[in-house]
Amino acid sequence: MLVLGMMSGTSADGIDVGLARISGRPPRLSIKLEGHHHVPFSSSLRKTILRVANAEPKETAEISQLNFALGEEFALAATAACKVWRVPLQRISLIGSHGQTIYHQGTPAPFLGHSRISSTLQIGEPSVIAERTGVTTIGDFRPADMAAGGQGAPLVPFLDYLLYRHPKRNRAALNIGGIANVTVIPAGANAKEVFAFDTGPGNMVVDALVEKITHGRSHYDKDSEMALRGWMLPKLLNEMMEHPYLQKEPPKTAGREQFGQSYAEEILAWSKKNRAKPADVVRTATIFTALSIGSAFQKFILPRTQVDELVVSGGGTRNTLMMIYLAAILPGFSIVSSDHFGIKPEAKEALAFAVLAYECFYGRPNNLPSATGARHLAVLGKLIHARAR
Amino acid sequence: MLVLGMMSGTSADGIDVGLARISGRPPRLSIKLEGHHHVPFSSSLRKTILRVANAEPKETAEISQLNFALGEEFALAATAACKVWRVPLQRISLIGSHGQTIYHQGTPAPFLGHSRISSTLQIGEPSVIAERTGVTTIGDFRPADMAAGGQGAPLVPFLDYLLYRHPKRNRAALNIGGIANVTVIPAGANAKEVFAFDTGPGNMVVDALVEKITHGRSHYDKDSEMALRGWMLPKLLNEMMEHPYLQKEPPKTAGREQFGQSYAEEILAWSKKNRAKPADVVRTATIFTALSIGSAFQKFILPRTQVDELVVSGGGTRNTLMMIYLAAILPGFSIVSSDHFGIKPEAKEALAFAVLAYECFYGRPNNLPSATGARHLAVLGKLIHARAR
Repeated sequence: MLVLGMMSGTSADGIDVGLARISGRPPRLSIKLEGHHHVPFSSSLRKTILRVANAEPKETAEISQLNFALGEEFALAATAACKVWRVPLQRISLIGSHGQTIYHQGTPAPFLGHSRISSTLQIGEPSVIAERTGVTTIGDFRPADMAAGGQGAPLVPFLDYLLYRHPKRNRAALNIGGIANVTVIPAGANAKEVFAFDTGPGNMVVDALVEKITHGRSHYDKDSEMALRGWMLPKLLNEMMEHPYLQKEPPKTAGREQFGQSYAEEILAWSKKNRAKPADVVRTATIFTALSIGSAFQKFILPRTQVDELVVSGGGTRNTLMMIYLAAILPGFSIVSSDHFGIKPEAKEALAFAVLAYECFYGRPNNLPSATGARHLAVLGKLIHARAR
Repeated sequence: MLVLGMMSGTSADGIDVGLARISGRPPRLSIKLEGHHHVPFSSSLRKTILRVANAEPKETAEISQLNFALGEEFALAATAACKVWRVPLQRISLIGSHGQTIYHQGTPAPFLGHSRISSTLQIGEPSVIAERTGVTTIGDFRPADMAAGGQGAPLVPFLDYLLYRHPKRNRAALNIGGIANVTVIPAGANAKEVFAFDTGPGNMVVDALVEKITHGRSHYDKDSEMALRGWMLPKLLNEMMEHPYLQKEPPKTAGREQFGQSYAEEILAWSKKNRAKPADVVRTATIFTALSIGSAFQKFILPRTQVDELVVSGGGTRNTLMMIYLAAILPGFSIVSSDHFGIKPEAKEALAFAVLAYECFYGRPNNLPSATGARHLAVLGKLIHARAR
């Protein structure tokens, strides 16, 4: 079955489209990535998404209209990707679309007479995708996990589990996107023995700092250039390492709430007060990110299980300095890129939603309760029938 | 199959739950209403919904949290209804939930580089309903029709079509709720030959006038008492009949935008200026409502098809004067109540979403393109698998 997966991350830079050939059923699921394509958002669209995601819609209308407009963008991305791959849309059996998260509250809070409401909101109307492509579409994966008492995240570890499970080796998969998350798959583990959590920031903090420092001319620190020109600021690093998220026991999920714009502004306020150089701040944030990942291994993983192999993926793997620090902090691990498993790192999340959709289509559970904290296995996703062709 | 349908209308007064026994497939679908239950919203919940629906969320978080909190309310309503009926939830095969509309823009407008975006937003997370009840749930019916170029409304005519289709008789179904809508089902019609539209106000204008005139002591004109004490004001009636909505060609949908509070205030301003008596204004508005329905038949229905039988439903059927005028305006129609078909008027919308869910479950189209303006038949609804019991 040819399944298309689509994803737009919290940084809202565009849509990743992955094409997967999937057959069989877990644990003997065969997954082959056949294509990846990225479609960037226009800067006005990105600005609108980020404003709404940072809690400032103009009115209810804006969220509703944005949901449908983003549905059109996802449909266009699917169509464009198929054109690039020269695969006719008619050959695609299923689309799995994560959509764009504009709100995520994993921890329950009182709301209107209910003592424990947690919620998540993804937009990019999947009905529009199904209609424009003519392909049955599954979207909105997170709510069902949350309804089952989970945090609705992380979901990608389900793919890690299927891809990296090894009869003899303890493996960990680390994805460094906006947020960094890790999946630990002990040798021969079943779904319940896998555990996963967000270690903290991935590129989010460094990206936000670079964007603010360069007044929007750069969106990230290409080849660690800026960080390599600076010096680490021990006082700032110590303060950052005190972040309460790093101390919290898993399961836990991180996002803009902890490491978004306002966190970057806090750091810049500190650096202004302490007259720190921008390059120094960026270097310190880069090291902080690597250390926050390392600390997660020391505190929450290594006491439970040995790790033989670390499979890394995500945009952060291109941050040279971050990877050097990571290797230094985690001695004894063999670090391999997810490329070795035929998975282009930038395609991984899109691929995950293709696999989640495939499992939902067959009515099989596709969450990892040990990763999300859900009380039980659940079938995540909402299925929309495509019209007859 | 026992199917539960749930609906909360634009007035946000609570959740209607209907229980239907459904079997077969269209046009030989057997539909039997087995129960109806209404669960009112608390006044604080109602206030929050109406504020958000009137375009003023505090932030994106509020919509997201409200979506999940309303999911809990719908789940509680389903559970409470089953308790009242003494039907264990385990016997329910499927739930269809409309949710609560908080935004609806049927007419496309430019948005963020897209020239034609229309959208609709229903909340009351169906994943929460599926999880709490353990029943496969279908929600979010309107987006797929809108994606297919329709207005996402009206959806209830699909039920009229299934209920009232007759091999020999041309039937029309008129529902007089806040808004009045009509479905025309020519003898032996297929789905494409049915047409439906909102004729204009139902009780909305009279109710708003009575509420304002009595300073909230009455919410509607019980037994037409006030209207029967007044005289019709020809000048006001003429002005009301000039309303542009009445001239507009179907498909068309009406709502608070045309006939809500501000329209009632306009009428009261006119009557103050012209020193009209309140009872005269209410009588005129009652006659206007009947005439607007009659005019829709004269202009848009009778030129296309003869009508043998008119099936009436909705709260407006209890407005004696309105029904007398309607019978006078539409001579030659046999007017029967929907009660004759075993449909409690107040259960009809909930029943419609049970039937829409049943059809979606089997992957069959459940919109009426002639009613919504969609370019083609579509399968409306998003399916969420319940967890294994």
